[in-house]
Amino acid sequence: MAMARIGETPTAMIDRVASILESFVGQRPLTLAEVARGSGLPRSSAHRILQRLVELGWVERNEFKYALGHRMFELGTQFTRQRSVHRAALPVMTELHRRTGLTAHLSMLAGAEILHLERVGVWPGDAGEWCAGARQPVTRTAAGRALLAAIPRAEWPEIVFGTLPTCYTVRSTVQLDRELARTRDRGGVAVDPQGCALGVTVVAAPIATGDGGHFALSLCGPTKSVRTEAVIADVRRAAAAVWRQASGIPPLRVRATETRPTEPFGRASRTVGAIWSPDAEPLVG
Amino acid sequence: MAMARIGETPTAMIDRVASILESFVGQRPLTLAEVARGSGLPRSSAHRILQRLVELGWVERNEFKYALGHRMFELGTQFTRQRSVHRAALPVMTELHRRTGLTAHLSMLAGAEILHLERVGVWPGDAGEWCAGARQPVTRTAAGRALLAAIPRAEWPEIVFGTLPTCYTVRSTVQLDRELARTRDRGGVAVDPQGCALGVTVVAAPIATGDGGHFALSLCGPTKSVRTEAVIADVRRAAAAVWRQASGIPPLRVRATETRPTEPFGRASRTVGAIWSPDAEPLVG
Repeated sequence: MAMARIGETPTAMIDRVASILESFVGQRPLTLAEVARGSGLPRSSAHRILQRLVELGWVERNEFKYALGHRMFELGTQFTRQRSVHRAALPVMTELHRRTGLTAHLSMLAGAEILHLERVGVWPGDAGEWCAGARQPVTRTAAGRALLAAIPRAEWPEIVFGTLPTCYTVRSTVQLDRELARTRDRGGVAVDPQGCALGVTVVAAPIATGDGGHFALSLCGPTKSVRTEAVIADVRRAAAAVWRQASGIPPLRVRATETRPTEPFGRASRTVGAIWSPDAEPLVG
Repeated sequence: MAMARIGETPTAMIDRVASILESFVGQRPLTLAEVARGSGLPRSSAHRILQRLVELGWVERNEFKYALGHRMFELGTQFTRQRSVHRAALPVMTELHRRTGLTAHLSMLAGAEILHLERVGVWPGDAGEWCAGARQPVTRTAAGRALLAAIPRAEWPEIVFGTLPTCYTVRSTVQLDRELARTRDRGGVAVDPQGCALGVTVVAAPIATGDGGHFALSLCGPTKSVRTEAVIADVRRAAAAVWRQASGIPPLRVRATETRPTEPFGRASRTVGAIWSPDAEPLVG
């Protein structure tokens, strides 16, 4: 086992480990040479560190290829499992998806992007940017603009407009300010029709929590069939319900829960039923 | 910035970082003293390493408490996002949950435990062991026994029976062998009635993939209302569909897909519709 060079600091060593682990992001399994190139480390250092990471389960080796290991996944899930907003959102998102068919996201502000923490539903497919663990630019997304509208401007991240995937993407401060004004007019709910991808409409509301971080709940569906006004009302109620649950406030019991014949157990329905009125407008035409 | 002690090896430094990150598992946010105690490191070392981990986003600090950070979550999601079995399973699990109300898990063998990689559905609640990222003992669970029945005995992990949460928990090699024989009689599908928790029945099937690792798909629901035979048929078909999709084999098109009025878009239904026959028996009585 090699000795550390004299003068090597703990920070330098942590950074080497980090650069190796980060080199796997967005990649298929990598060879040693690719890891060394990606992390900017000499091949011998990369190999020594990889060996230990494999022993820890943080990296796994399959013949001559390396990839992130299952222990990394377990550590990562601790981030969401320890958050009351995630525990509160999951049943609400699941019920919302089951009832509407739309895809629900829980996202948080991470620099000038939003990071998706949870997704229930598979539409619009497994394209990278919609997955749990993926990021989207804050200005482009309904979730991002719902958060910007809710946060004092002094606390905003630096705003960058970056690439513009469609002709509907918000591309200037003037457009952004107009969208934020509309969001505030809707009581904080942001709507993004096709700003991320053609044919995709997203509706988002912020969730006020003391959970460390800024969180938003959103629903996305096909632009041509989403009934925006109904989705706005649903997202608003859902975000409020998650906030109440995460804050330990008993749920509002506006109407009795509708019995669903295919729902074999009561817990989720009881919690969520109070939020959704059974005669709510259908979300899609 | 402190210098590494002469003679400190890279492995020792990696282990320190690992012991700090691992000390957060299953914990609420920790103080510096708790992190030092949990990791077995001197307070000064723990502090120095934590500082760098905070800068990297791997740990976050909120006043005097530390917790795992969002960058750790993003790295962790790479583990599942890079696996074709996960991409293939998610639409199948989502549709299965929407149709039946039962909770679907995708799990993998990790030592003598199964590790849940994905969950669709919230029942039986947010108790630790059923979450994505949580583990359950291999002998106790339907997923674990479905995998043991599918793997040559020479490749088994060491079998430990451990704690026995209910009177139905498999507790001996004789019982395990009997359950595995039953599993093989069912064509590889394992059933666990109340072995993990009273009132919870789980049905699981292995997914044969070349994806590195042993994976299983399972459905769980309340023992008193689950129609086991129908669930067995469903889990078997779902596991086969995931295998076909993950292996790049076109899906079987047995019957036409039923049109679902609440499903506004076609992709998931088209993929999954071929697997589920519209006049299949309902899963719950």
